[in-house]
Amino acid sequence: MAKKNNKAEGEEEGHAPDNVSRGGERRLPKVPKGARDFGPEQMAIREKAFKIVTGVFKRHGAVSIDTPVFELKETLTGKYGEDSKLIFDLADQGGEILSLRYDLTVPFARFLALNNVGNIKRYHIARVYRRDQPALAKGRFREFYQCDFDMAGTYAHMFADSEVLKVMTEILDEVPIGGYEIKINHRKLLDAMMSVAGVPTDKFRAICSSIDKLDKETWAFVKDEMVKAKGLDEAVADAVGEFVRQNGQPWAMLETLEKNEKLTANAEAKTALEDMRTLFKYLEAYNCLPRFSFDLSLARGLDYYTGVIYEAVLTDPSTGVGSIAAGGRYDGLVGMFNPRCKDLPCVGVSIGIERVLAIMEKKEGSNIRQTETQVLVAAVGADMDLERMKLAAELWAGDVKAEILNVSKPKMDKQLKYALDQGIPYMLIVGGDEVAQGVVKLKTLAEKKEEVIPRGEIVVELKNRLAK
Amino acid sequence: MAKKNNKAEGEEEGHAPDNVSRGGERRLPKVPKGARDFGPEQMAIREKAFKIVTGVFKRHGAVSIDTPVFELKETLTGKYGEDSKLIFDLADQGGEILSLRYDLTVPFARFLALNNVGNIKRYHIARVYRRDQPALAKGRFREFYQCDFDMAGTYAHMFADSEVLKVMTEILDEVPIGGYEIKINHRKLLDAMMSVAGVPTDKFRAICSSIDKLDKETWAFVKDEMVKAKGLDEAVADAVGEFVRQNGQPWAMLETLEKNEKLTANAEAKTALEDMRTLFKYLEAYNCLPRFSFDLSLARGLDYYTGVIYEAVLTDPSTGVGSIAAGGRYDGLVGMFNPRCKDLPCVGVSIGIERVLAIMEKKEGSNIRQTETQVLVAAVGADMDLERMKLAAELWAGDVKAEILNVSKPKMDKQLKYALDQGIPYMLIVGGDEVAQGVVKLKTLAEKKEEVIPRGEIVVELKNRLAK
Repeated sequence: MAKKNNKAEGEEEGHAPDNVSRGGERRLPKVPKGARDFGPEQMAIREKAFKIVTGVFKRHGAVSIDTPVFELKETLTGKYGEDSKLIFDLADQGGEILSLRYDLTVPFARFLALNNVGNIKRYHIARVYRRDQPALAKGRFREFYQCDFDMAGTYAHMFADSEVLKVMTEILDEVPIGGYEIKINHRKLLDAMMSVAGVPTDKFRAICSSIDKLDKETWAFVKDEMVKAKGLDEAVADAVGEFVRQNGQPWAMLETLEKNEKLTANAEAKTALEDMRTLFKYLEAYNCLPRFSFDLSLARGLDYYTGVIYEAVLTDPSTGVGSIAAGGRYDGLVGMFNPRCKDLPCVGVSIGIERVLAIMEKKEGSNIRQTETQVLVAAVGADMDLERMKLAAELWAGDVKAEILNVSKPKMDKQLKYALDQGIPYMLIVGGDEVAQGVVKLKTLAEKKEEVIPRGEIVVELKNRLAK
Repeated sequence: MAKKNNKAEGEEEGHAPDNVSRGGERRLPKVPKGARDFGPEQMAIREKAFKIVTGVFKRHGAVSIDTPVFELKETLTGKYGEDSKLIFDLADQGGEILSLRYDLTVPFARFLALNNVGNIKRYHIARVYRRDQPALAKGRFREFYQCDFDMAGTYAHMFADSEVLKVMTEILDEVPIGGYEIKINHRKLLDAMMSVAGVPTDKFRAICSSIDKLDKETWAFVKDEMVKAKGLDEAVADAVGEFVRQNGQPWAMLETLEKNEKLTANAEAKTALEDMRTLFKYLEAYNCLPRFSFDLSLARGLDYYTGVIYEAVLTDPSTGVGSIAAGGRYDGLVGMFNPRCKDLPCVGVSIGIERVLAIMEKKEGSNIRQTETQVLVAAVGADMDLERMKLAAELWAGDVKAEILNVSKPKMDKQLKYALDQGIPYMLIVGGDEVAQGVVKLKTLAEKKEEVIPRGEIVVELKNRLAK
């Protein structure tokens, strides 16, 4: 019914709306750049996707929280590095200085610190805001949903990490996105690799961000950047390259790395490899290890990760390449808000639900029903408006989803067409004869079958059929 | 788990956060004034309430839409009269000038105009934003939910109005708020009353807003305001008073008014009374007329109403007095955005869901379960961590909601306490003996009963019991 609005893309910045205050003459309305209206079909798909995702979260006993759409600007300051320039600020209208939330992780950390929450396994599905250049084709918007699942608090070693990853696989298995693979690595192993390869400590983060490009660029390109742009010795770059081009089945990769004596001599690497060994054991018990690839090129941009990191990518080329979910362990973030929460351990995953929705919209398109209506209450003959209303009220009272055509004395073909167009499975038909005899006609549209049912039995009869 | 945050109330305005850029030394975090965090208990109550409300909307075949949290500022300009000063603006960071939505009605009208939507029966549950002085005790926040249901487009006379009101009664019957009454009136009847009473046309809106105070103030107070503050003749004020102090059962009131020849000589009054007669007939067919009181003092502040207006008030004094839902017909609003949509008729209702949530929180308090977990997978003895994980994975694969305690080798009393605290109905217990024999123990906590079940049958067995 509602068409998608595509006006945001390619639109020019900078034309301040000069007719804000003119009142009378107005151009046609529009939605803000990078934002969208969601029509009934898109909402039906969104509901379906959220139901799957929420179902998995609840299956794991997760609780739900929500936070305000805006935070104090200071809460967001110093958390996003260069991307801070993409934060939407509210106008200073007197009082507090506010910004729209940029993600759900920082508000979660703020929530934990403010409310002194200990152990919590929570999900949060909400919109976040980024003043990025919108690119609708790539699914990049200024307002978009995130679905986050995090476990904060003290749990047995690698228990939380493995459950977060199990949740991630269950969701990706259940949403209709096709095949995927989860790359997994460890922040401490990355640091150890660079140390062993001879990268100077002050270049760790810069080299890390070059490594992160290996999912899109060739090794030659990345090496070139390391050497020319970042001033790394070519021999050191080659040593890094030896590491980061390795990936494969978790146990096999682990064995290879454990045999590397230079690496195992490094304390950080040793911790990381022990973490991975325990994790893989748990993922095996959780029956999801085959989904994983131990990939030394996975670096993840964000500074706050402190342990395992992971990213799921789609393997079906027709759905396009790219990340569909990602996360990791971040043990220091909550402590930034409250020293009493210092070292409150956290691990989580964020599902790229907008990509999931885009794939589902493409697949299901306009085939999805916009409503769940089960019965159209119809009539033949004049003077049946009140009878239709009475019957509809009986159905609603019995919690049957029913509609009447909001037309007075509608023709039967019009009512039938509406039921067929909307995919409504049943019609109840009343006319003068039916009212006189105390019955209704029940029409099953798929079978083109009509039956006569006593009026007093119709709600129970329908509920029995609908329960099947 | 999470405590409610009450810091917004009584807090001072105007202290710009001077430590935004200082970084290091930080005060403890807070949420913005008038905004709230929602902890797991509140979220469970919210979910329960939304499920009821959404259930009613869907039962009537309504579709869902969503719009961005911000709109172009010009979209909101000129819609809210004096209250425009309460609109939250975004900072001008280059590009469009934006504001947070103030309600869901104007975005709906903008949506209809932009997408050229014809007939639509839609609901929209989302947050809106007002820079009002927060008053937590009164449930007044700066960020709060609205639940709107509207029917736009051409329907048979009074069909849409009656269905909106039917939806309103179903929701108010199903949410646990106690008794209520819906006052109903007609904008055209109000105008006719004032005309017949001799109120000068240019004073209609001002007198209307005095009338609107009759739910809180005495007639003497309101008359005084009309005469002294608004310069109405005392005799005219008395004539207005004759009308507006009348209210009662719909049919009885209608008969009284139809006998008033001065009123029925007025064309607008005649139209309004005919509307009401048809509406009452339909509400009777819909079996909900006893919920209504025809109340001539109901005026409703907003300018855009053009037909029936209504407001539901709680009748249980312990829940406090006040409006819990309100709405009316507004046939001109969409035309303000798009001349092609001029006179697109609309009628709708907005449910005051925050008041509903506040009442539910008071009633259900901390009795509500935060999770839906059905089974705690527990173990006795050492070395059972992997067994617990394997068993949990089997349950999850069968869509059973299950948790394990995220502790290595947990003691049985700790596991039992967790299950009892969380209200989890079943425990599955594995130990060395059970693994060896290929069985598990199923403990039903309410009955303190333990049974031994073959491992391979446990998912089916549990699903059967849970289905009951």
